[in-house]
Amino acid sequence: MHIAVLGTGMVGETIASRLLEVGHTVVMGSRSATNEKAAAWVDKAGAGASQGTFADAIAAGELIMLATKGETGIEAIASAPAQAVAGKTIIDISNPLDFSKGMPPTLSTVNDDSFGEKLQRAFPDAHVVKTLNTMWCGLMVNPAMLADGDHTVFMSGNDAGAKTQAKRILTQFGWQDSAVLDLGDITTARGTEMLLPLWLRIYGALGIGAFNFKVVKP
Amino acid sequence: MHIAVLGTGMVGETIASRLLEVGHTVVMGSRSATNEKAAAWVDKAGAGASQGTFADAIAAGELIMLATKGETGIEAIASAPAQAVAGKTIIDISNPLDFSKGMPPTLSTVNDDSFGEKLQRAFPDAHVVKTLNTMWCGLMVNPAMLADGDHTVFMSGNDAGAKTQAKRILTQFGWQDSAVLDLGDITTARGTEMLLPLWLRIYGALGIGAFNFKVVKP
Repeated sequence: MHIAVLGTGMVGETIASRLLEVGHTVVMGSRSATNEKAAAWVDKAGAGASQGTFADAIAAGELIMLATKGETGIEAIASAPAQAVAGKTIIDISNPLDFSKGMPPTLSTVNDDSFGEKLQRAFPDAHVVKTLNTMWCGLMVNPAMLADGDHTVFMSGNDAGAKTQAKRILTQFGWQDSAVLDLGDITTARGTEMLLPLWLRIYGALGIGAFNFKVVKP
Repeated sequence: MHIAVLGTGMVGETIASRLLEVGHTVVMGSRSATNEKAAAWVDKAGAGASQGTFADAIAAGELIMLATKGETGIEAIASAPAQAVAGKTIIDISNPLDFSKGMPPTLSTVNDDSFGEKLQRAFPDAHVVKTLNTMWCGLMVNPAMLADGDHTVFMSGNDAGAKTQAKRILTQFGWQDSAVLDLGDITTARGTEMLLPLWLRIYGALGIGAFNFKVVKP
């Protein structure tokens, strides 16, 4: 599948490299068509990897993975023509973290709204699936490195077909069916985005990011 | 130990009954000295159980367990003379849930503050420990009923001695040492209170409340 990965940070790079590894082609999108971090990744990643503007990546991608910072993903996707976005699945792994008030960051959208919902409202003809946003990127793409993958990845979204697409990618990353917890529609993204403040405190207490939450059921 | 349990709801009653079971005496506090739910509990619970106003309970209690609704706990504790509160440990198991805008509830304090911190600011001479607020009350007092207790209870607070007291009670309830995750000072209560929105969505997806989060570490 041709996949657009938006964002050149550690999360974007980790996701993009793993997508190549499992057989997809990836266009890494950023503000500039000649972004240096994207160029370095393309050099390193080799066959199947390319770079472009956000709009270039979206035009080429059958599916969009959003790994941009804070709430910038809406502007990034809006830089593409509406018809290039319509009908596509947007897997949103970003979080509305606001670092402007110091550490640990707060959330710029919270409580009675979520960034996932904002994204869905901004692109009503696309299908937003919020997932993977509750953990360190190393675990996103390689869950088996912790407790043989026996921990939880959440999923929120309005469209069943888009969720099936997202789940297929999770499976390719190594997630077991039993580890995927579908919370319901995109409003449930409020729950997973609001997990970030706890994630940050646990990170502070443990001093490691390679932990995850498991929902333990009877 | 003589313990004040503030609140006559399901959480207060569950906590109060279990405290009796493990050998404490309990005064259940409420707005009125003759509260009917508290009276019914005292009748049922028998020896070691009594009831009174919030102030009565606090006067009798060497330790306070706060199981009131929303943010009403501050008013409840403020109804006692300051010297009856000073120096005591307040184990805060409440959450600032706001049901006024419909279901699922939102949080009335969130993001850059927490109810735990508000409580500590309101009673600077007491020692607030936030714990147990991230799960169904049946699990709070009997963690072994789920996965042999192999799931997590968080703890936040500024005072090491108060945390030791709180941990002793957790142990009496059946919590293993390895299940208790001390997140740090009371500001970390922002993290655990903000877990409630996710808890509510998981409850919605699973249709059961007898689940809990486990922090899975390498």
